[in-house]
Amino acid sequence: MRGAVFYGPGDVRCETLDDPKILEPTDAVIKTAVTCICGSDLWRWRDLEPFGAAQPVGHEYVGFVEEVGSEVTAVRPGQFVVGSFATSDNTCATCRYGYTSHCVHREFMSTCQADYIRIPNAQGTLVATEEVPDQAFWPGLLALSDVMGTGWWAAEAAQVRPGSTTVVVGDGAVGLCGVIAAKEWGAERIIVMSRHETRQKPALEFGATDLVTERGDEGIARVLELTGGIGADAVLECVGTNQAMQQALRSTRPGGSVGIVGVPHEVELDGLELFHSHVGLRGGPAPVRRYLPELMNLVLSGRIEPGKVFDQTLPLEEVAEGYRAMDERRAIKTLLKP
Amino acid sequence: MRGAVFYGPGDVRCETLDDPKILEPTDAVIKTAVTCICGSDLWRWRDLEPFGAAQPVGHEYVGFVEEVGSEVTAVRPGQFVVGSFATSDNTCATCRYGYTSHCVHREFMSTCQADYIRIPNAQGTLVATEEVPDQAFWPGLLALSDVMGTGWWAAEAAQVRPGSTTVVVGDGAVGLCGVIAAKEWGAERIIVMSRHETRQKPALEFGATDLVTERGDEGIARVLELTGGIGADAVLECVGTNQAMQQALRSTRPGGSVGIVGVPHEVELDGLELFHSHVGLRGGPAPVRRYLPELMNLVLSGRIEPGKVFDQTLPLEEVAEGYRAMDERRAIKTLLKP
Repeated sequence: MRGAVFYGPGDVRCETLDDPKILEPTDAVIKTAVTCICGSDLWRWRDLEPFGAAQPVGHEYVGFVEEVGSEVTAVRPGQFVVGSFATSDNTCATCRYGYTSHCVHREFMSTCQADYIRIPNAQGTLVATEEVPDQAFWPGLLALSDVMGTGWWAAEAAQVRPGSTTVVVGDGAVGLCGVIAAKEWGAERIIVMSRHETRQKPALEFGATDLVTERGDEGIARVLELTGGIGADAVLECVGTNQAMQQALRSTRPGGSVGIVGVPHEVELDGLELFHSHVGLRGGPAPVRRYLPELMNLVLSGRIEPGKVFDQTLPLEEVAEGYRAMDERRAIKTLLKP
Repeated sequence: MRGAVFYGPGDVRCETLDDPKILEPTDAVIKTAVTCICGSDLWRWRDLEPFGAAQPVGHEYVGFVEEVGSEVTAVRPGQFVVGSFATSDNTCATCRYGYTSHCVHREFMSTCQADYIRIPNAQGTLVATEEVPDQAFWPGLLALSDVMGTGWWAAEAAQVRPGSTTVVVGDGAVGLCGVIAAKEWGAERIIVMSRHETRQKPALEFGATDLVTERGDEGIARVLELTGGIGADAVLECVGTNQAMQQALRSTRPGGSVGIVGVPHEVELDGLELFHSHVGLRGGPAPVRRYLPELMNLVLSGRIEPGKVFDQTLPLEEVAEGYRAMDERRAIKTLLKP
């Protein structure tokens, strides 16, 4: 089969790889319907994150079940399935609390930009649709495997409530999905911190009510101006830099909350500042699996359209161009077709 | 009048000071019924916190209204009142969200170890009892002005729920009040991290179900052992050191929460560790004023007895001995009688 391999910063290649096999009785192998490139894949591409030897890449997927291990009964060959970037048995104590992405058997997916994918913990990870959905829904369902689930989690972690004033820090695919989530959770005002015109358009389309183009202290001042001087009820941190985190913290009112979904890169928090802010923090890899049944319904009923975050579609062979396009901000998010 | 003055580490003196006066129409002056020394006063006493010139000290109080400014109508001379260590107008946007200790007009009390006290923002800060309570209730009501309200807030911030497993880090007066709060909030299991026998007794009396005497990694391992390997639902951090904070974070299950009420001293949080923990954090100075009506009822009905945290009573003149006794752990908390 073909699959993308990350060789080092700026170097991803589509190569011929061995077909994945069932290794554990809890595995499944799926034939990829569509897959994509994640903003988080860019950290290594940009040499901002350590990396080891050449390795396959990709963690987002929807596809058709090809084969299942002997212990997998929840899905069967031929079914169209959606899964999470973090696999889970869905039965351990942590899963039962809803934190499927912290499952004691968790494995992070990392070989998904490929024709076929081995899915560990398939029983707890994959959710099948009732029938094979129309191709028009594939991008939306694909978004659920990470970015839309992550935006949803950001809204949960930031405790967005009906009537809330919500700030979304970051206008990448996750930030845009955060806007969709905030709207669904009932936010009345959705302020998006965005400097890129190409991303402001979808932000407004998804429900943003205000755009703040300033960053740092100026951005914070602008949010305070828009929120009666005290800050927002809920802030979704969808970037992962120290600047974004400070911006999020200082844009939140006392008693408000920040949901952190941008993977922190060299972020340090001062305990005393956090204390005196009265702001609540929670983050982590999104418990996507918990949300799948609900979000699949929302996509298949046409209620939400997270597939719109894909503004570039390429054949799998051209995966390297997808990375370049996202790196250069020519694309928000690139969908790959096997 | 007489009042305590902090001169420097290890040096607090009871001196003759000018009687406080109404300075603003929103002030009241009260005649102190009882006051006390706080664990947080010890940071400076121990030279662990910067300090400036000699200054009055103390922020906990109950007393009799002596005089009110022209804009104060909620209380009148002669009434017995309880107030918060953080004053609040109780009308600003932040107060309306319940974060009275973040009021836009907030002033922290700092002259309360004295015969008379000026209370800024008296209208929003003081709550009068229906009648002058029996002296037996004074210590319990005094505890509400800080430590019991702070324990209550720790339980709220840590999201203690009926049936929760709760850990209390710290066995000082605030930690002990955290135990009272956790029990009232319905925690089924209350694990107290305590090394001091004199404090284990009241902890058990207030509702602790388990004691963990180990600290650091060993303490964390012990809590994990007691919580099915995943950690507690809710953790109350009542110390303020970096070690205590790490202990709190790492004793919490994914999806659980830490309530931070120990004022952080040189505490840094690693963003990536916090992210991957899935643990929620919130802290700050307790919004005591919000809780006063409810907590005053609980004390006056005999339902909770936070006054038991006072295990030493001294006349105001002997305030220095109170500091020494608390510093040397001969006393948990010292009540001062004018």
